[in-house]
Amino acid sequence: MIPFISQLPKDEEITWITALNQALPDENIVAFSEVNPAEKKHCQLAIVANPNTELLAEFENLTWLHSVWAGVEHLMMSLANSPIDVVRLIDPTLSRAMSEAVLAWNLYLHRDMPRYAKQQKNKHWQQHQLVPASERRIGILGLGALGQASAKQLQQNGFKVMGWSRTAKKIANISSYTGNKGLAEMVAQSDILVCLLPLTPATRGMVNEELLAQLPQGSAVINFARGGIINTDELLNALNSHHLSHAVLDVFEHEPLNANSELWHHPDITILPHISAPTNLNSACKIVAKNIMSFRATGQIPKAVSKVNGY
Amino acid sequence: MIPFISQLPKDEEITWITALNQALPDENIVAFSEVNPAEKKHCQLAIVANPNTELLAEFENLTWLHSVWAGVEHLMMSLANSPIDVVRLIDPTLSRAMSEAVLAWNLYLHRDMPRYAKQQKNKHWQQHQLVPASERRIGILGLGALGQASAKQLQQNGFKVMGWSRTAKKIANISSYTGNKGLAEMVAQSDILVCLLPLTPATRGMVNEELLAQLPQGSAVINFARGGIINTDELLNALNSHHLSHAVLDVFEHEPLNANSELWHHPDITILPHISAPTNLNSACKIVAKNIMSFRATGQIPKAVSKVNGY
Repeated sequence: MIPFISQLPKDEEITWITALNQALPDENIVAFSEVNPAEKKHCQLAIVANPNTELLAEFENLTWLHSVWAGVEHLMMSLANSPIDVVRLIDPTLSRAMSEAVLAWNLYLHRDMPRYAKQQKNKHWQQHQLVPASERRIGILGLGALGQASAKQLQQNGFKVMGWSRTAKKIANISSYTGNKGLAEMVAQSDILVCLLPLTPATRGMVNEELLAQLPQGSAVINFARGGIINTDELLNALNSHHLSHAVLDVFEHEPLNANSELWHHPDITILPHISAPTNLNSACKIVAKNIMSFRATGQIPKAVSKVNGY
Repeated sequence: MIPFISQLPKDEEITWITALNQALPDENIVAFSEVNPAEKKHCQLAIVANPNTELLAEFENLTWLHSVWAGVEHLMMSLANSPIDVVRLIDPTLSRAMSEAVLAWNLYLHRDMPRYAKQQKNKHWQQHQLVPASERRIGILGLGALGQASAKQLQQNGFKVMGWSRTAKKIANISSYTGNKGLAEMVAQSDILVCLLPLTPATRGMVNEELLAQLPQGSAVINFARGGIINTDELLNALNSHHLSHAVLDVFEHEPLNANSELWHHPDITILPHISAPTNLNSACKIVAKNIMSFRATGQIPKAVSKVNGY
């Protein structure tokens, strides 16, 4: 028996449990609330979607969790000192959706869509010079699975692409930067800065006043990672002083974004409701099923998230 | 001596003449207004940008014109019964800009940007299902140089791409349609219909009520060709009845679009000021120079636009 532990609305939780049971016909996946107390000590693993981690203590023999989400920052912070391993979802469908979103909103900025939308509002007909993609420099923060896929797709569509990551990466036609010096170097050349970092204690608030000031005049920022990575007040200052031309924000410290937030009506901010790379139920269930079947066959826990790095 | 004949503003005309003289140091390119009447009979060719064609009659020995633009529909209509050949600009820079624009505004529609922009205005947080690109069917009207480049770039980014043209084309991974039956077949499957046709008597008003009715419910239209190809009133009906979800219009019968036009404020129309593929001065001058130098060396006029088809 495998408990499914989440804070999802009931109907969404049922959708997940049904799909997981279909993908794993030899297992019995059960909502947390329906697990018989006597059975809890037999559970070696749980399937989770941003669970209330206090509930995990009730399963004394739990050795690992499989998250159906890619972002596991809450889990990693709660389990920093726990021996329980966390396996996160690494789904090529997710990479495809994300790299497509990165391409789409880079083209949105590259082809001046926000500016032309303002002109339409004012019935103003004016053409602006087209910068060739080969001269549009895009800096990606984070070169994990999503960052690498995004960098490649941008490069294949003619953009000049750079990437920054904790450890140096070697990717054809992508300039790779690392460390504080590399960060400053890349940011100073980024016409568009794309944030795809995991949220960890090291990345929280990383895109702050100091980093934004290093961006070229008139550059733009896209955040498809986690709200906590950008200091929102300092981003607003950089937009209001016209040092930055635009920001595309898909993620926020609190979601849904509060109706009182001044972000909603800022003329140079595009707000998206966390849609850059939605989890695909079918493909996620297939991947979770494959990992669990492999564990049952071999006793080996799939590659877990590092407790040191948080990703 | 080569006259430059246009209806451009004076400063733009000077920019073109200066750049053309730099690209053709052995020629003397002169504004129409500055051509000595006695010299007119020595001119074999002229360089033009949408010229007043009445002026051409003053050059009795003119055999061909080189347009610095790709669109030559006015010229072809005026010169239908003239022996003067018209060579239009075929510039790979232009194809790159156009195929990038086609990709950019397809992604704009594919990733629901107009809908999320409305939600932002209403501070409304709602996620919509993401259709995989592989299930998004894009129909391209016109598979010339620009249509083919666009089809390939869309296909490389995962879309399901179809194309319609007068004569059947064979392009890897693109379904090719031709004739009236092929047109109906393709349109009925197009979630996004992209118009890249030349404006000719045969294509004027081609995207009309009947054709729009054949599109699937909720589909969208992009016009990057010429305003005259779409019947605007019938397009508005299709949008207002919600048969179509959105239209992206970059070209209009009269440009700039009149401030009184109801198109400007339609909630489901994106207006662009003819920016999908702006002519690149430097690359256009290089191509014109190469064609003229080849003509001087061989006496052969470069491949001209067909008087029958208009492209």
